[in-house]
Amino acid sequence: MPHRVRRLALVGIGLIGSSIARGARAWGLADEIVVQSRRAETVATAERLKLGDRYTTSAAEAAADADLVIVSVPVGACGAIAREIGPALKPGATVSDVGSVKLSVIRQMQPHLPESAHFVPAHPVAGTEYSGPEAGFAELFAGRYCILTPPEGANAEAVERVKAFWETLGSNVEIMAPDHHDLVLAITSHVPHLIAYNIVGTVAHLEEVTQSEVMKFAAGGFRDFTRIAASDPTMWRDVFLNNREAVLEMLGRFTEDLTALQRAIRFGDGDALFELFTRTRAIRRGIIEAGQETAAPDFGRPHGSESA
Amino acid sequence: MPHRVRRLALVGIGLIGSSIARGARAWGLADEIVVQSRRAETVATAERLKLGDRYTTSAAEAAADADLVIVSVPVGACGAIAREIGPALKPGATVSDVGSVKLSVIRQMQPHLPESAHFVPAHPVAGTEYSGPEAGFAELFAGRYCILTPPEGANAEAVERVKAFWETLGSNVEIMAPDHHDLVLAITSHVPHLIAYNIVGTVAHLEEVTQSEVMKFAAGGFRDFTRIAASDPTMWRDVFLNNREAVLEMLGRFTEDLTALQRAIRFGDGDALFELFTRTRAIRRGIIEAGQETAAPDFGRPHGSESA
Repeated sequence: MPHRVRRLALVGIGLIGSSIARGARAWGLADEIVVQSRRAETVATAERLKLGDRYTTSAAEAAADADLVIVSVPVGACGAIAREIGPALKPGATVSDVGSVKLSVIRQMQPHLPESAHFVPAHPVAGTEYSGPEAGFAELFAGRYCILTPPEGANAEAVERVKAFWETLGSNVEIMAPDHHDLVLAITSHVPHLIAYNIVGTVAHLEEVTQSEVMKFAAGGFRDFTRIAASDPTMWRDVFLNNREAVLEMLGRFTEDLTALQRAIRFGDGDALFELFTRTRAIRRGIIEAGQETAAPDFGRPHGSESA
Repeated sequence: MPHRVRRLALVGIGLIGSSIARGARAWGLADEIVVQSRRAETVATAERLKLGDRYTTSAAEAAADADLVIVSVPVGACGAIAREIGPALKPGATVSDVGSVKLSVIRQMQPHLPESAHFVPAHPVAGTEYSGPEAGFAELFAGRYCILTPPEGANAEAVERVKAFWETLGSNVEIMAPDHHDLVLAITSHVPHLIAYNIVGTVAHLEEVTQSEVMKFAAGGFRDFTRIAASDPTMWRDVFLNNREAVLEMLGRFTEDLTALQRAIRFGDGDALFELFTRTRAIRRGIIEAGQETAAPDFGRPHGSESA
């Protein structure tokens, strides 16, 4: 039986915030849900979708008297939100977030939060390429991991409550140090997004190959990259600006390896290519066995008549 | 009403060959299908799957008296197959292939084929990450493009027959010069595979991040890359060895762009990042509109209870 929150405030109501709202409703995680977005239009959409019980464009208003505040905004905006909600928080309130970077979020938010509030940073490793309140769904976090990076001396009960909250949404919760989180996510998420954005960008300004050719023959492999390169631009700009060191470090590894591979191609070293291409199969099997990927061919994309 | 082939010989019966076999059967494209693989075990599997009417380990035997021979082997093996089948071909026979590289295949095969045979190289831009005769299915080519690269002076009727064959399998057929094909596929298929193999390889030998962490948090983006990095190692080794110039050229563009992006991150140029990340969304929309990709979030992967 999960702990039920009396008042849940969702600051930011995009893909992640709206999925939390739907999940919290579906699994009875809160008596009352207050939904906030700084844009009136987004608030109106959230209201139309019945994502909450109360709606506001003011983060401070949303946070006032809330037991749990979850900030789901691009990581570059976390500091400003913390400054806004800090003075409004009631004693004993728990504040969490969903940012893909943790050291920077902690540095931005913590100074603005009162001693009497409990800060438990979180990162649900889940998402789709779509953005906004209409893109969310209650099952987004089911079977996915949610990483908590509580600062030293964090209130154990607050950590437990945030953990139980995410477990009820279907997530597996892991506790991690923020700097290690940022390194792990740099290679499992940030660099993959960067190289996906990059190759889609490369394709966009080729002269020898037309856009029409790219569209037609994308099934050869390219289309797999375009999904994550369609992710929210503001969110991802902020990720790269706020996890610079870890991203540059992991990117350095990637390009070093790519240079070696380029050399193997140039000198016709088929054995080196074959050896790498064989080794990489095992990693996918591991991800499928960890329940983090479908075993269906082609991601289970429709084929044949259904795909028309 | 498609032209029905009297005898169709399938030399090589992996993912592609077996999908052709199934499609040819389903849509009545041949009176008789002869299936060949150099491995007796694979021939036995094909027979168990009832992929053909006759089975052999000899490419020459398969090609003898065939009206249409389709060679579906790794591109590095095309020359040896052509040498083997050349003397066995009957006058007027059409020979085609499915290789992902075209200039090299033409150079390897054409010298061994008799003047009396018609050579119409083809490349169906379709596949999955699975290999072997059991992985094939009749709808693999439906809605996908198949590129023909007939040499100058190719027999127009033979080209028309191969075109009709692929159209009956559900493909959109395009005619292209072989060198242009190799350049287009270098960026839409070969370089994407290379960077997918590369990042999966980078992850495999990190010390700071454990394999278990990679598996757990792969949903952050990494898992999208592992699909194409699980593709057949022999096929892909041969692609890179046989399309070296175009791959190196396109890889050069990719790394040049990546260096600029790295610089933007290092110097905190958020506008440059945002501009690129916004531009790349349009490409995915184009691919979806061209019918080459699903619009379902996350490739339509199962979420929630179904995904367990």
